[in-house]
Amino acid sequence: MQSMGDRPRFVLFGDSITEQSFRTGGWGAALADTYSRKADVVVRGYDGYNTRWALFLHNHLFPLSCSAPPAATTIFFGANDAALLGRTSERLHVPIEEYKENLRKIVYRLKECSPTMLVVLITPPPVDEDGRKEFAISLYGDKAMELPERTNETTGVYAKQCIELAKELQVPYIDLWSQMQETAGWQKMFLSDGLHLTPEGNAIVHREVVRVFREAHFRAEEMPYDFPHHSAISGDDPERAFLQKS
Amino acid sequence: MQSMGDRPRFVLFGDSITEQSFRTGGWGAALADTYSRKADVVVRGYDGYNTRWALFLHNHLFPLSCSAPPAATTIFFGANDAALLGRTSERLHVPIEEYKENLRKIVYRLKECSPTMLVVLITPPPVDEDGRKEFAISLYGDKAMELPERTNETTGVYAKQCIELAKELQVPYIDLWSQMQETAGWQKMFLSDGLHLTPEGNAIVHREVVRVFREAHFRAEEMPYDFPHHSAISGDDPERAFLQKS
Repeated sequence: MQSMGDRPRFVLFGDSITEQSFRTGGWGAALADTYSRKADVVVRGYDGYNTRWALFLHNHLFPLSCSAPPAATTIFFGANDAALLGRTSERLHVPIEEYKENLRKIVYRLKECSPTMLVVLITPPPVDEDGRKEFAISLYGDKAMELPERTNETTGVYAKQCIELAKELQVPYIDLWSQMQETAGWQKMFLSDGLHLTPEGNAIVHREVVRVFREAHFRAEEMPYDFPHHSAISGDDPERAFLQKS
Repeated sequence: MQSMGDRPRFVLFGDSITEQSFRTGGWGAALADTYSRKADVVVRGYDGYNTRWALFLHNHLFPLSCSAPPAATTIFFGANDAALLGRTSERLHVPIEEYKENLRKIVYRLKECSPTMLVVLITPPPVDEDGRKEFAISLYGDKAMELPERTNETTGVYAKQCIELAKELQVPYIDLWSQMQETAGWQKMFLSDGLHLTPEGNAIVHREVVRVFREAHFRAEEMPYDFPHHSAISGDDPERAFLQKS
């Protein structure tokens, strides 16, 4: 049993879609609220990062000597790895085989850090190429490149490798790329600039992460409070509730 | 200089208004976003708790042996302490003198935990008695008590003691009780049920916490990233950016 005041930690490791997950309607904040008083949600999202760069972080973020490793970690990369060579975001590009191997190294590291850690792989979301173009024009006007820096098709190839790896390693995954495209009008409904998430897009991620967490037995209603619920505290003898717990 | 991957922690210690601060539009989530990649926001909000009960927690939450104490902590109690005797929430009531002394103990504990910790006292928000009554009727119908369980006047007395203590101890404070009432229509604009915060009410708390944090030199734009911004990473030689940092 955990000691008083300790809570399991859920780490969100990823790129800008993770970094922005505490904005209004964000999936990270919603997850923190779902597990309110049960778990701490720690965001480690890095705008613009691909899996190659993530490898420079993961040993620091998940040290082997950690006395209290995260209970769960989401790994949510690929949107930058899938940026196309020869286009405006080519600096972010990581070849598909390397993407998969980098993800594998990250999963291995987390499992080495804690064999019982729940590790969840999340594919990049789909790309709305028109939305990306509009966004580029809003930033650069006439100077915006004609050709898209990301395509939905290529991002889909990365998503598939992410899923294949998850199956190989037998870790749960969320196929965001496919799931979002099941809804008509996903381009504007779920994506704000063709790549990042609207509140509705965030809601999908939140729903899916909670689903996978629950399947792995992180059900908020069954997890212990770190301290007693107020209804269990007697007005006359409050100490009793705290003594029972410790 | 902090080591890679470490970030200062900001702890939000309080009652339900803190616990709910990661809901959509919540001030806690907004604070996490303001200090994105610069600091971790840790929520320790306990629905229904008063300062008397908070004293059973604070030694656990702020152990003296802590190797990495929080860089800042907000203390946001009083809404429950100010519940009236003889009314439906009297179990939560704490006498005004004890409220002030309990707050003092909490501040002392935090300063003992870390003399350099920024400690910010936040008064309870004002109470909209009509809003509370409507809320009670929505829950209990005809059985709702005629007399309010909290009044704005009494909560104001608690707010004043909170401010007086902050001045005595020379710690910064946020006079939410007064500030909210400066805006016409505060009752419905800032409070959802006469006591808890609407997104607009959350925005006030967020704005004020950021203001006080900035005055204490926690300015997000001047705080270091834990890891390099992607624009500082070379596509050809990414390692360089990470070596420079460590």
